[in-house]
Amino acid sequence: MNRSMVRCLLSKLLLIEAALLLVPMLVAIIYSEPLRVLNSIGITIGILLILGLLGSAFKPKNYHIYTKEGLLIVALCWILWSFFGALPFVLSGQIPSIIDAFFEMSSGFTTTGATILPDVSVLTHSLLFWRSFAHLIGGMGVLVFALAIMENSKNSHLEVMRAEVPGPVFGKVVSKLKETAQILYIIYLTMFVVLAIILKIASMPIYDSIVTAMGCAGTGGFAVYNDSIAHYNSSLITNIVSVAVLLFGINFNLYYFLLLRKFKAFFKDEELRTYIGIIVISTALIWLNVSGLYASAGKGLENALFEVTNVITTTGFGITDLTVWPLFSQVILLILMVIGGSAGSTAGGLKVMRALILTKISRNQVLSTLYPNRIMTLHVNYQPLDKETQRGVLKYFSLYITLLVGLILILSLDSNNFMVVVSAAASTFNNIGPMLGTSDTFAIFSPFSKLIMSFAMIAGRLEIYPMLLLFIPKTWSKY
Amino acid sequence: MNRSMVRCLLSKLLLIEAALLLVPMLVAIIYSEPLRVLNSIGITIGILLILGLLGSAFKPKNYHIYTKEGLLIVALCWILWSFFGALPFVLSGQIPSIIDAFFEMSSGFTTTGATILPDVSVLTHSLLFWRSFAHLIGGMGVLVFALAIMENSKNSHLEVMRAEVPGPVFGKVVSKLKETAQILYIIYLTMFVVLAIILKIASMPIYDSIVTAMGCAGTGGFAVYNDSIAHYNSSLITNIVSVAVLLFGINFNLYYFLLLRKFKAFFKDEELRTYIGIIVISTALIWLNVSGLYASAGKGLENALFEVTNVITTTGFGITDLTVWPLFSQVILLILMVIGGSAGSTAGGLKVMRALILTKISRNQVLSTLYPNRIMTLHVNYQPLDKETQRGVLKYFSLYITLLVGLILILSLDSNNFMVVVSAAASTFNNIGPMLGTSDTFAIFSPFSKLIMSFAMIAGRLEIYPMLLLFIPKTWSKY
Repeated sequence: MNRSMVRCLLSKLLLIEAALLLVPMLVAIIYSEPLRVLNSIGITIGILLILGLLGSAFKPKNYHIYTKEGLLIVALCWILWSFFGALPFVLSGQIPSIIDAFFEMSSGFTTTGATILPDVSVLTHSLLFWRSFAHLIGGMGVLVFALAIMENSKNSHLEVMRAEVPGPVFGKVVSKLKETAQILYIIYLTMFVVLAIILKIASMPIYDSIVTAMGCAGTGGFAVYNDSIAHYNSSLITNIVSVAVLLFGINFNLYYFLLLRKFKAFFKDEELRTYIGIIVISTALIWLNVSGLYASAGKGLENALFEVTNVITTTGFGITDLTVWPLFSQVILLILMVIGGSAGSTAGGLKVMRALILTKISRNQVLSTLYPNRIMTLHVNYQPLDKETQRGVLKYFSLYITLLVGLILILSLDSNNFMVVVSAAASTFNNIGPMLGTSDTFAIFSPFSKLIMSFAMIAGRLEIYPMLLLFIPKTWSKY
Repeated sequence: MNRSMVRCLLSKLLLIEAALLLVPMLVAIIYSEPLRVLNSIGITIGILLILGLLGSAFKPKNYHIYTKEGLLIVALCWILWSFFGALPFVLSGQIPSIIDAFFEMSSGFTTTGATILPDVSVLTHSLLFWRSFAHLIGGMGVLVFALAIMENSKNSHLEVMRAEVPGPVFGKVVSKLKETAQILYIIYLTMFVVLAIILKIASMPIYDSIVTAMGCAGTGGFAVYNDSIAHYNSSLITNIVSVAVLLFGINFNLYYFLLLRKFKAFFKDEELRTYIGIIVISTALIWLNVSGLYASAGKGLENALFEVTNVITTTGFGITDLTVWPLFSQVILLILMVIGGSAGSTAGGLKVMRALILTKISRNQVLSTLYPNRIMTLHVNYQPLDKETQRGVLKYFSLYITLLVGLILILSLDSNNFMVVVSAAASTFNNIGPMLGTSDTFAIFSPFSKLIMSFAMIAGRLEIYPMLLLFIPKTWSKY
């Protein structure tokens, strides 16, 4: 392993985090927050600067890094950013436990939105802003962002990005590397700004509109109030958020196609059609199932659509009390948690593309029992999908289910409510946020479970492999 | 499709069921049961004889059948046997609803042991015997049995058996066809008889010892009393059953090796070692977890071992109130439900062999991220496993999880207890029997759900594909 290069790159990433922390610092100043808060952010920036400068002072002998180092840097970056990002909460006393604060910031950077805070009003404007700002940063991947602005080891970008950008199909993006990353980021930030403006127009306070828009953009879900979007008691805002997260759950490459005026490529995209299809069917089923619980059919539809879009896109804002929903609707939400958003979007989960491929593989498998001698090709987006990719998706699914079940087993030590345990596991591993079957927050879990879930959030965000590498001793050997 | 051949073979299978019904008829006579019971069995035998003789009267023009017909015959056989096997319950009034009775007999033939009867004392000796006798018949597969005694379409055995014998590795058995089937059946029946004698010596009444031994042999789980094995209140009997089901969950080909004095092949078998390892670890974890619930450590171990062996072998006898067990132990049982017993045993589930292969594939996948250029071969039982089999296992797993989740979704319409719904789905699909999280029987589900679960039991028993073929219109086309 090229350790000096890993050290050097990680140090530069710490410097970036120091720069990012200037934003919540600014918020603290705007809202004239107590000195203790300013200090907590300032000290953290200081620590990051010292570590970052020391670590990058000595140039590496060799700039070449392989996949292994690329994956490692990504995994370590998310852990370090979450850890140092947690310090202001601890230092300011707003979240006294470092494990709780680490959970909260992992949840932020991984765009999960799961919280250990029973009452978010303990956070001042600046730190509440910081955890939501982490959604925005985490949204398109810490490293895509870093890549677009960093000048570094020229040939290693590809591997680092492959680990970062979600979803099984990455070809279109890779080919153009940094330029594409910048274009995607411009699309992303533009959509974020437009959304913040729309929310402001819909009569949200400016602070709330920015925080909420960051939660939508990163498909994160941290809100300003304990009762999340329900706080605004506005159908308009509810529906804006439903549509917004739906849009952020679409593959960003497709928006690039729109910019290039390739409308056909956009509308004929099979993953997009599947994604929309799943949303429509799930919303309809839940709407029927919960119809008795709401005053009007329109209100039922509004709530159903909100929950479906917020769960499938792995955002997880709240609007209604899910504990009163019938189990059927809750199971649909659980299934959507696992499916997740589109590949190449800001959403987590297994991804619609993988679900689509798995479904097609199963269909072919059943048909091949009927016609054992027929050779079946599997088409996705009107192109044949090679066997290697198919096998990769199958293996990923198998590993995914195994880890999810393991997570459920660990969490079952902390609660006797099966729905709580299953949904907590699915929610963190797929970067959703809320649990089902309870009104509690993640505070109910033990520190050990919180740590495991923090790692699960990062593993889920990075599509598993980079995190697992950390736990293989051979990863750390010097070649 | 060679419809006349399918008709002809199914008719002969109905005649076999008519013959099998003579056994409960004999039991009814021994216990001098009311005329209505004798009539109910007699009428069913009459119906089977008429249909069987009519159907096999006209010889088919062409004796050749393909995989498709083979799979179809297997699936239809289980459905028809369950349907006609259910008639005595309906005709005698002991289970008035045909759907309930069909569920009960599907549960019998698939060696599930799930019941819709809150109180089994409504059954007379003969019909209680009949549903347990179905375990014994179903154990090694209706058709392995049928094959061993039937003289028929010479070249089609292989395909029918492939659909029937559980597990992914089938090579050793196929090569010798009928002779092997007979040997396995002799081993199976001998073990059954020895077990019945041991249970009798352990002071069980003779009727109970036979019924219980049939439940163990088929890894079924239908017992004589509502409180199952707990009724005997005997540690000796409890432990005998634990060991017995453990033995019936081992690949029967390994017993054949023992007979051939190939001891090394037996003890070095990787699936066997994994199977034993899973049982030891699960028992230890549960023992620790439930230690506070039992009077002594010994009692805790006894109950933990009983539940672990009964669940992993998909038998499902009862000994203790699982609703008071902590969630952690219940989740372990759920995981064991999915893993199931060894390939080539009488057990259901995914099979230890598949779980082993999936684990190895995942491990290789993670390592190959670390060493992208290394070629990894996967060894099972000290032999390389070809890619095609690996892909087959991955595809099976993907289809399996999809169907399990679909089943959970359907059942969630009937209950608001998530553990009940998940365990009911896992229990029927993997042919276990009991649910977790409730003391109720499957009577709580709607007729529609009962029907779906009956099909799920048969699908699980036949390793999915044959049942799915029934629902593809093209299966039924005349070439």
